[in-house]
Amino acid sequence: MKRSKIVTFLSDYGLEDEFVGVCHGIMLKIAPDLKIIDVHHNILRQDIRHGAVVLKQSVPFLPDSVHLAVVDPSVGSERRAVAVETGWGEVFVGPDNGLLIPAALTAGGIRKAFELVDERFQVRPVSRTFQGRDVFAPAAAHIANGADPSDLGPSIEATDLVTLEIPEAWVHDDHLHAEILQVDRFGNLQLNFAPARLSELSIEPGARLEIRLEGHRLKVPYALTFADVKAGEFVLVEDSYHYLSLAINKGDAAAKLRAAAGSTAIVGPQLA
Amino acid sequence: MKRSKIVTFLSDYGLEDEFVGVCHGIMLKIAPDLKIIDVHHNILRQDIRHGAVVLKQSVPFLPDSVHLAVVDPSVGSERRAVAVETGWGEVFVGPDNGLLIPAALTAGGIRKAFELVDERFQVRPVSRTFQGRDVFAPAAAHIANGADPSDLGPSIEATDLVTLEIPEAWVHDDHLHAEILQVDRFGNLQLNFAPARLSELSIEPGARLEIRLEGHRLKVPYALTFADVKAGEFVLVEDSYHYLSLAINKGDAAAKLRAAAGSTAIVGPQLA
Amino acid sequence: MKRSKIVTFLSDYGLEDEFVGVCHGIMLKIAPDLKIIDVHHNILRQDIRHGAVVLKQSVPFLPDSVHLAVVDPSVGSERRAVAVETGWGEVFVGPDNGLLIPAALTAGGIRKAFELVDERFQVRPVSRTFQGRDVFAPAAAHIANGADPSDLGPSIEATDLVTLEIPEAWVHDDHLHAEILQVDRFGNLQLNFAPARLSELSIEPGARLEIRLEGHRLKVPYALTFADVKAGEFVLVEDSYHYLSLAINKGDAAAKLRAAAGSTAIVGPQLA
Repeated sequence: MKRSKIVTFLSDYGLEDEFVGVCHGIMLKIAPDLKIIDVHHNILRQDIRHGAVVLKQSVPFLPDSVHLAVVDPSVGSERRAVAVETGWGEVFVGPDNGLLIPAALTAGGIRKAFELVDERFQVRPVSRTFQGRDVFAPAAAHIANGADPSDLGPSIEATDLVTLEIPEAWVHDDHLHAEILQVDRFGNLQLNFAPARLSELSIEPGARLEIRLEGHRLKVPYALTFADVKAGEFVLVEDSYHYLSLAINKGDAAAKLRAAAGSTAIVGPQLA
Repeated sequence: MKRSKIVTFLSDYGLEDEFVGVCHGIMLKIAPDLKIIDVHHNILRQDIRHGAVVLKQSVPFLPDSVHLAVVDPSVGSERRAVAVETGWGEVFVGPDNGLLIPAALTAGGIRKAFELVDERFQVRPVSRTFQGRDVFAPAAAHIANGADPSDLGPSIEATDLVTLEIPEAWVHDDHLHAEILQVDRFGNLQLNFAPARLSELSIEPGARLEIRLEGHRLKVPYALTFADVKAGEFVLVEDSYHYLSLAINKGDAAAKLRAAAGSTAIVGPQLA
Repeated sequence: MKRSKIVTFLSDYGLEDEFVGVCHGIMLKIAPDLKIIDVHHNILRQDIRHGAVVLKQSVPFLPDSVHLAVVDPSVGSERRAVAVETGWGEVFVGPDNGLLIPAALTAGGIRKAFELVDERFQVRPVSRTFQGRDVFAPAAAHIANGADPSDLGPSIEATDLVTLEIPEAWVHDDHLHAEILQVDRFGNLQLNFAPARLSELSIEPGARLEIRLEGHRLKVPYALTFADVKAGEFVLVEDSYHYLSLAINKGDAAAKLRAAAGSTAIVGPQLA
């Protein structure tokens, strides 16, 4: 299969160290004409779910390519390294710990999977602490460079892969039990539901909501854009990934509420 | 017009999230052979003036290309999205909030401007919260890829663009009323005047100055380089953008003085 | 000599400012088809040794290319700007302050060195505060683009270059006097010795060690991988650069111990 020579790269390596740069180095040694897109390297340390959330949301906006993702708290243990091919022909490369699964499922589903064991596609000796450099980056570069994922190791049944589910908000009476999926630089809190879930409760833009979160009890308009409220006021809007986001217009909701990924929220109509 | 296939990219998106990476993804989907230079992504959040200062100072050192800049506190409102062509043939793409203007004026002046409304050059549906991804990045990529800015929407009079002025220091008696334009990683404080303004006051390198700032009253030599004073001492030097910079040799002036962009300073001769 | 058109780039410029982006801009003005690998830009401010440690460890994993490195506390003074060619044909470009030396010695040794003084390869006028932009980046781009290092200025004797040594741990009785070389994002503490130094003391993986550091007295197993101890426990493992690293499995050893680069450590057998 002809692929674009692009690798997208997500990790929890941060930009404080040389981890990301060295992975770029390894990939360009293998394929000097490769393009690498750094999607995100500040996934919360060793937080597989955070990585899975960001990867799933980002992939629709990335070129059809090889997606390298490394959040790997069990590096050096027996966890497998895998390449997962999807129904749409995209390839995800990373640890077999669930990180890749939600993204792969939204990109046509898992068609084939392979364990990355062939030494020809590794930096040898493989270290026990930095397999992004020694196993995952070289695999991604070789696949982007034309290798077939099946060249890199034996086939794995899709049902044998470690799975991971991103929790969805659930309805109870007239309100939703929700959770913060992630917090961005602006302090906007992404919640784990789409406008359709509010529609089930007959709540549409224009409604006034009550949101309980981290001990706060907020009265929040459900609007179309930040600018529908005054600067400094809370607002609930659909974000660019079609999730609801709790924000302060020109302010920082996360700092104000001391909320973080994983905080639970109860969202319902504002009582008169 | 034949352009280089380079987009330079400045924003307040930070590197903590996937914003920058996803914009890269969108651009490389449109033009896989594009080169993208990340100029600066840590513009102070929603601080249009800070973005304008950095963009203006950086552009002389960047290739002739398409300059994508996004600092957009009014995203989702009625503010326009624009492409501005300059007298030197460079194109600036971003929100119509003044961000692009100082840079465009130093790059040959505004020759033409267009409103970015043609849906063929957008990611649809356009979100109300992330138009860097949906409007600005695709426009920049299409223009770098050969589209003419006039393809993307109707012409706007240059005089209809929102303007922004970067304040300049002014003389009063024997001293300057100045302001800090920006603070860099090393804690150096960039002031809003060039050596010529000091020459108007007959102050030349070698002079000893008094600088009043954030309640401090500093005696500072006006020198040619950091190393002209001992480690730990204040010095005023011309920085690499031809502005005066208040620094501590091998130290952090911003931390020491608790000063930030926007702090005012009074700079004059040191009295005997 | 035919080189790959790749420049690797390490600095203490951080990613908070436009320094790195502007250097990219200058290089792509000179050679639009250049590839630039950002190895590390968060070298501790003006810490030449930290830069030298990271550069030395990273180079084996980077393509044969031009390695641009800038940690330059004496910018603007008389310190020289140099290009150093190694026995393996790699070229290091940076200030003559020792930063480049440990890396060059591990890449075939210093074969030739040149002082970067030819104005044709500089951004003129050269500023006194940002020579990464005006001297080092343009030199690196020109060399990657085909210029011979000897074109850029007169030859320097290798013995005339400023040197820098990275201290190595030393044995005293039955223990090692060691030092922390660097701390990574995960809080892992890299010590300045390899497994062979422990073998000299008849200490092999599986042993239990006592480590004294920053007032703490830790009992630490010497293991093969993080996962050999429970989450939250200390472990000493060989890291991916073949140094010993003091870590907490799924935790942050640096935060727990308040340790940093330069902290000294005494490592020996755990007494019964």
